[in-house]
Amino acid sequence: MTVDLFANHRDTYVQFLNGRFRGKDGVRRLYIERFSKTFVQGRNGPVHGFLLDHLQAQDVVDYYSNTSPPMAKGRFRALMSAGTHESMDQKTLPRGLRQWWEGGLYENEYIKEDGVWKIFRLRYYPFWHGTFDKGWQYTPPDYVPPFAKTLADGDPLGPDEFVQNDERLWPDTRAVPFHYAHPVTGKMVEEADLRAPLLGTDPKEAKPARLIVDSFA
Amino acid sequence: MTVDLFANHRDTYVQFLNGRFRGKDGVRRLYIERFSKTFVQGRNGPVHGFLLDHLQAQDVVDYYSNTSPPMAKGRFRALMSAGTHESMDQKTLPRGLRQWWEGGLYENEYIKEDGVWKIFRLRYYPFWHGTFDKGWQYTPPDYVPPFAKTLADGDPLGPDEFVQNDERLWPDTRAVPFHYAHPVTGKMVEEADLRAPLLGTDPKEAKPARLIVDSFA
Amino acid sequence: MTVDLFANHRDTYVQFLNGRFRGKDGVRRLYIERFSKTFVQGRNGPVHGFLLDHLQAQDVVDYYSNTSPPMAKGRFRALMSAGTHESMDQKTLPRGLRQWWEGGLYENEYIKEDGVWKIFRLRYYPFWHGTFDKGWQYTPPDYVPPFAKTLADGDPLGPDEFVQNDERLWPDTRAVPFHYAHPVTGKMVEEADLRAPLLGTDPKEAKPARLIVDSFA
Repeated sequence: MTVDLFANHRDTYVQFLNGRFRGKDGVRRLYIERFSKTFVQGRNGPVHGFLLDHLQAQDVVDYYSNTSPPMAKGRFRALMSAGTHESMDQKTLPRGLRQWWEGGLYENEYIKEDGVWKIFRLRYYPFWHGTFDKGWQYTPPDYVPPFAKTLADGDPLGPDEFVQNDERLWPDTRAVPFHYAHPVTGKMVEEADLRAPLLGTDPKEAKPARLIVDSFA
Repeated sequence: MTVDLFANHRDTYVQFLNGRFRGKDGVRRLYIERFSKTFVQGRNGPVHGFLLDHLQAQDVVDYYSNTSPPMAKGRFRALMSAGTHESMDQKTLPRGLRQWWEGGLYENEYIKEDGVWKIFRLRYYPFWHGTFDKGWQYTPPDYVPPFAKTLADGDPLGPDEFVQNDERLWPDTRAVPFHYAHPVTGKMVEEADLRAPLLGTDPKEAKPARLIVDSFA
Repeated sequence: MTVDLFANHRDTYVQFLNGRFRGKDGVRRLYIERFSKTFVQGRNGPVHGFLLDHLQAQDVVDYYSNTSPPMAKGRFRALMSAGTHESMDQKTLPRGLRQWWEGGLYENEYIKEDGVWKIFRLRYYPFWHGTFDKGWQYTPPDYVPPFAKTLADGDPLGPDEFVQNDERLWPDTRAVPFHYAHPVTGKMVEEADLRAPLLGTDPKEAKPARLIVDSFA
């Protein structure tokens, strides 16, 4: 049923880490096959002792009245409490027992098909992680490793393509681009202001910003 | 004043854990008498050094235009930061010093009485707890024990009745039933998909789902 | 660009801790000069390894149709995950490496200027802090110290004035006054109910409540 939330449009995708999963096949491959296989042995639903409490808040939704079909964009924040209960059988868990906090951002697009709003382009940025024990001060780099191979390159649960940006997790704090302009000045945030230089260094010398280049105008 | 938020309707109740507190008398017994007595010696308001920061988010509110009187349903998520400050006198605290995280869900119903929206049926599911030190990986079963006796059975602060479901806390992850259908397919989630089988076991063999059977149609 | 979000009105201010920063100059002094200097050596944007994830939720926004110019009030809750990554150079951090949780409240006022809604009076109450390691049970008093001097008294990054209330942080739990009345009774919360007496003591003997006295009617 997750897959049904997405548009039939040929440009539909889910972006996660450095990968894009295209169309409803891609959505199914990521959410149903990859996640449920990795986390809970294929169960597409709750499992006793497994927590993925994914609280979403701070919605900024913009409807573009001049688009045909109707389209919208939404930015959301997420705060996740996740992990396994000690009563689970550790041997059956591919990643063992663990618990962590995760803060993320969504920058999504929506489209109306046959009178129903559907998800068109879902981009989830799992911005930071922190284990429950040690916190975000001690998160190892690449806490969730980027995809190494696409589907065509031989990962049967891999993305269809890589994103062009160098998408990295915390401690990389480059801002997720905003779909909306400053409400008073009407200006978009400048590229240099989205960068995350090392403390005390020149933003101009820092890694280029994350960009979202395929968003509808 | 909490009690005034609730409807005068004879079917008004608050559901908490395995208990239902009926009518405004029940609301008062749970929120004012039981909670304030257990936590803060009867104070119906803030107490120095006692924290119950109950953040609510992710509202899904549905208004049913064909009902008379007007009715609505709402699903909310809560994330609570709670506990006591070390400066409190431990001897005066019935449960001692402690601090914990709590993630919960509301599936509520509302009714308009005399032109004012009021809470009709409040169902709070304190889904998971984790002490600040150890987290949800190590939550003991029945972290908040279910009610053992009703008011009629001799608990002066007990519920009027027990719910029919076997309501349990984390690590039981059976989903709280959704009041709304899938926005694209129009289908309700099936009972088997609300269950929480042990990892790698057949949902059909698992404990039946939580159900909400008295919701208005 | 943060400063542009605020009204040109001469009564515009930001309230933080026991200080008020007046007008756009004050807003700039607090957010740009003080915060960016204290935290990230003057960078007005993201810095690699520095986290201030400030989730906002639970909006209660009221529009007052009888005001000219149009005005509104809003109450929000915030939950912050903040701190530094161990990869940062500790010697460059004025406060060293650290990580903390913070729960806060906003009680704001807004005004429409030239057809655009702007922030008029922003009051942020950083209600409680807890280090990631020890939690809110062990927060030292005055975790963020109150301002000692105003701008006129010699702190070049200080507030223009002090608030009249004795504004303190957790474990002081005096409620932030609500801008709205009880939705059923129409009554405002009484002053004694906003107080936070020591456990088991008479609210009448406790410290007076926080008050917001300059809000538009």
